Amino acid sequence: MKDCQPNLQPAKLQIYDTTLRDGAQREGLSLSIEDKVRIARKLDRLGVAFIEGGWPGANPKDGEFFRRIQAEPLMNAELVAFCSTRRPGAKANEDAMLVPIVASGTRLVTVFGKSWDLHVTEGLRTTLDENLAMITDTITYLRSRDRHIIYDAEHWFDGYKQNPEYALRTLEAAIAAGAEWLVFCDTNGGTLPSEIETIVKQVGNWLSERGDRDSKGIMPKLGIHTHNDSGLAVANALAAVQQGVTMIQGTINGYGERCGNANLCTLIPNLQLKMGWQCITDEQLTQLSEVSRQVSEIVNLAPDEHAPFVGLSAFAHKGGIHVSAVQRNPLTYEHIAPEQVGNSRRIVISEQAGLSNILSKAKACGIPLQKDDPTCRQILQKIKDLEQLGYQFEAAEASFELLMRDAIAQRPHFFSVLSFQIHSDAARHSDRHGEVDSLATVKVMVKGQEKLTASEGNGPVSALDAALRKSLVKFYPAIAQFYLTDYKVRILNSNAGTDAKTRVLIESSNGDRRWTTVGVSTNIIAASCKALVEGLEYGLMLYESQNSPNHLSDRGLSDFIEQNIEQNYDRSNPNNQIGAINLAN
Amino acid sequence: MKDCQPNLQPAKLQIYDTTLRDGAQREGLSLSIEDKVRIARKLDRLGVAFIEGGWPGANPKDGEFFRRIQAEPLMNAELVAFCSTRRPGAKANEDAMLVPIVASGTRLVTVFGKSWDLHVTEGLRTTLDENLAMITDTITYLRSRDRHIIYDAEHWFDGYKQNPEYALRTLEAAIAAGAEWLVFCDTNGGTLPSEIETIVKQVGNWLSERGDRDSKGIMPKLGIHTHNDSGLAVANALAAVQQGVTMIQGTINGYGERCGNANLCTLIPNLQLKMGWQCITDEQLTQLSEVSRQVSEIVNLAPDEHAPFVGLSAFAHKGGIHVSAVQRNPLTYEHIAPEQVGNSRRIVISEQAGLSNILSKAKACGIPLQKDDPTCRQILQKIKDLEQLGYQFEAAEASFELLMRDAIAQRPHFFSVLSFQIHSDAARHSDRHGEVDSLATVKVMVKGQEKLTASEGNGPVSALDAALRKSLVKFYPAIAQFYLTDYKVRILNSNAGTDAKTRVLIESSNGDRRWTTVGVSTNIIAASCKALVEGLEYGLMLYESQNSPNHLSDRGLSDFIEQNIEQNYDRSNPNNQIGAINLAN
Repeated sequence: MKDCQPNLQPAKLQIYDTTLRDGAQREGLSLSIEDKVRIARKLDRLGVAFIEGGWPGANPKDGEFFRRIQAEPLMNAELVAFCSTRRPGAKANEDAMLVPIVASGTRLVTVFGKSWDLHVTEGLRTTLDENLAMITDTITYLRSRDRHIIYDAEHWFDGYKQNPEYALRTLEAAIAAGAEWLVFCDTNGGTLPSEIETIVKQVGNWLSERGDRDSKGIMPKLGIHTHNDSGLAVANALAAVQQGVTMIQGTINGYGERCGNANLCTLIPNLQLKMGWQCITDEQLTQLSEVSRQVSEIVNLAPDEHAPFVGLSAFAHKGGIHVSAVQRNPLTYEHIAPEQVGNSRRIVISEQAGLSNILSKAKACGIPLQKDDPTCRQILQKIKDLEQLGYQFEAAEASFELLMRDAIAQRPHFFSVLSFQIHSDAARHSDRHGEVDSLATVKVMVKGQEKLTASEGNGPVSALDAALRKSLVKFYPAIAQFYLTDYKVRILNSNAGTDAKTRVLIESSNGDRRWTTVGVSTNIIAASCKALVEGLEYGLMLYESQNSPNHLSDRGLSDFIEQNIEQNYDRSNPNNQIGAINLAN
Repeated sequence: MKDCQPNLQPAKLQIYDTTLRDGAQREGLSLSIEDKVRIARKLDRLGVAFIEGGWPGANPKDGEFFRRIQAEPLMNAELVAFCSTRRPGAKANEDAMLVPIVASGTRLVTVFGKSWDLHVTEGLRTTLDENLAMITDTITYLRSRDRHIIYDAEHWFDGYKQNPEYALRTLEAAIAAGAEWLVFCDTNGGTLPSEIETIVKQVGNWLSERGDRDSKGIMPKLGIHTHNDSGLAVANALAAVQQGVTMIQGTINGYGERCGNANLCTLIPNLQLKMGWQCITDEQLTQLSEVSRQVSEIVNLAPDEHAPFVGLSAFAHKGGIHVSAVQRNPLTYEHIAPEQVGNSRRIVISEQAGLSNILSKAKACGIPLQKDDPTCRQILQKIKDLEQLGYQFEAAEASFELLMRDAIAQRPHFFSVLSFQIHSDAARHSDRHGEVDSLATVKVMVKGQEKLTASEGNGPVSALDAALRKSLVKFYPAIAQFYLTDYKVRILNSNAGTDAKTRVLIESSNGDRRWTTVGVSTNIIAASCKALVEGLEYGLMLYESQNSPNHLSDRGLSDFIEQNIEQNYDRSNPNNQIGAINLAN
């Protein structure tokens, strides 16, 4: 289909990121100026062509953001300001909305206008002709101030389906006024790929015919902006590219209003690795997984572990048959090489675990194990025994590594818990929230000393966690950096006659990295204690491997670090203190 | 495109759900038999045509699941067993793998076989001819046992791209042996929609020509099975449907290995509302959002709030312009009417969407409420306040009914908790399982008396539960029948500066029925106490409504019973006694 529109096909596609503007419309996401600057720098290094920074003047933050970037410009990407057409009935050069747009100092401005007659009459409550004048005036005015214009045709597909003649008149107005780019927006996200294909093709033909008539020979470039309300944002963008569109708008991790925008972390690898377009360099593409995770950390949203290409599970293999086949030939169960997008293969330890799982896991952790090594079978047996008790290691890789290091006598010993007691007290029942206080006392043996410590907490596990850290931090100051990031509980169904088990998963962080540990017991407190203890042990092991490289065979750890490092982690984060531990209440 | 394959186009598409088999491959998801039965019943009510229940014999769980469903069959959906072709070099009638498949007693069996030569030689390590024989033998054997066959052509698209001749020979083998359906599987999830379109079209043509030659006139029906590794599972399934495929395989919420399977909660509304196919009835479609959320609760995974169609944010309007426009005309910013999929518009300032929810919920519980009744708005306000605190009533219908009955002064008062204390003690840490003992003391006010009671338990919640029952059972002997069947905990993300909340869901049973209650607090004990108390209250209310029919309007209760009844509940189960209450430890 590429040859339908030969004039519109450059060798390179332009990636236009709108994480900072449309992405920030996601419910529950709010960006500080600092967040915006950090994301913009990461996008710049990733190699996107354009970064839409916001709507200067719409709020104080966006104006300040543009000033910050003006003061220290981006290296490669071009920053773009975003605004609407002028108000109905006003003059563009008198519209106060446009003053901060010009002041933001960008070469490019994206102007969005109405394509759908319904929105003109019901949304703007003005006439169809006035809407055309608004498009013309706004672009003409910004062109007179030497701005280049990307025209976002809002609700393009819905508008074109309802009233194609009027929709084309809005494009005509934008082209005649000097828009350099026309971007087809599926604002409500309801369009199907087959419709995108048909409509972009028709409009492409209209543009070609129009270009032949136009004495100035103006031929705008085309872009696509899709939303994911039908789960089709990526497919729709691909369909538009196949019809000659060369600017692709989207956001990191698909953040955006309602169901989100087209996910650039999915789009870029599809375009580049499967369809042969160049969007960024191959080397920049290897940063994609890291950028995805860093942005999710900056906006403080849990990363989607099942995201295509960049998710932690995207190249995770579970079944025994899969594992042995993928090790013989990765092509068998992988659609691309994970390294191309900076991700990595993971062998998941599960009920179907076999020797090959253990071996590849050990290898990833830098533990030297051979298939015929009896230790290998011991580990497998140990896992099967623990799984019988309700353990599950697929989400608890830190516990699994400790188990393997135990088997080869490479597990460092930091401390042991001798006893603990927890007391929870409620004066009245739970209608008034948070009124239950918990108090834990714990006795540990650490470096030859017995330490008895007490601590309060917002719940029994939180109290126990606080008491453990309090008793250990003098011996291991690194513990001051650790905090809990997630706590999950699952009750396992009991077989008749046996006790039900509780499985607890605890995720810990040291500010740079996260790791998960597991504990199982008939008692939720005992299960939590085990997971807490292993969480501290693993964190200390990580710390020591970084600070005394010979202490451990640490290829696994360095792999882990490479995959998880947050170069710009803000150590002033208030969560990064013992006092703020309150997740496992 | 529809008219390309006129013979393959029935009026109705067949939805084939594989949540219980392929969905369970998702990392971090593990299903008990009970979970599988509950999900199957919900899928059955939703109206899917086929439910793939698992691979009988692959593990003890799947065999037991099929026996459970045999004992109490599904209403509408057809249960399907899943297995591979026989082992290389073996005979089908001697392959032990096929014994439990036949024993599972389903009319339909899905057999998956290798289409890709690479997988035959590198994965199975056998010859290309032996693979063909494996397909032929397995299907022939199962046909001789009166099974109807769905043939899953694994890695179809990769195999066809590499070696189309061999791939077609595998299909030929399946058809000749009597497969009724051929399903094209994009097992690695790497195929683009344009490739799906081309390949399905070519294979459709091959099948037509083959059908003309075949003296028996065998014409298999076609299916599609896609994975989301390229973010295109839904688009790929739609592309296949446009080429004449009539069975669509997928999972609820897109659960599945790596990046998941095609999400039926996205596919069904796209097919039905946008492309005009009938998959389920329009009324069943209105259950979709509820089923999506219930399944995510059963598997204990946070629902994706931004999921297309069914997510909490799918029809949430944030911007002021959007809100006023969408109120004037929902078409302006909504691609479908949210009610069509049982979702609702969410606008902070509008109560309208919520009111209809309350009304329909009240109606289901047999509570007489009118739209203009001020109580209705009070309930809505109360829910909004509680949701702000982290409550969620989707999966806690018993708590929701108590809340509504409270508002109309129809909530019976049985007892109140005045205070409690819980003490947990561990002599040594958790390496030895179950050694932590918990002791609870609770003071309740019941029928004018203050009762102070103590009880031990296997964990703090278990101890509290035991103490509560012990103090109440003399006053309400029905409590002796109650026991806990599930206990789920989720930590809710905290906003900056506020404490993280814990949400506890407790499922209780009286041997005949189950009900779920919810509690939220910064403290897990306080949250659990609230859910425990409401669990007892609801159970007592159920008991009274059965034993004095005029006491309550109990149409809601009978609806509830219909939806939740477990006919085959084993009363000899040792858990069905107070002494054995140990789930919420």
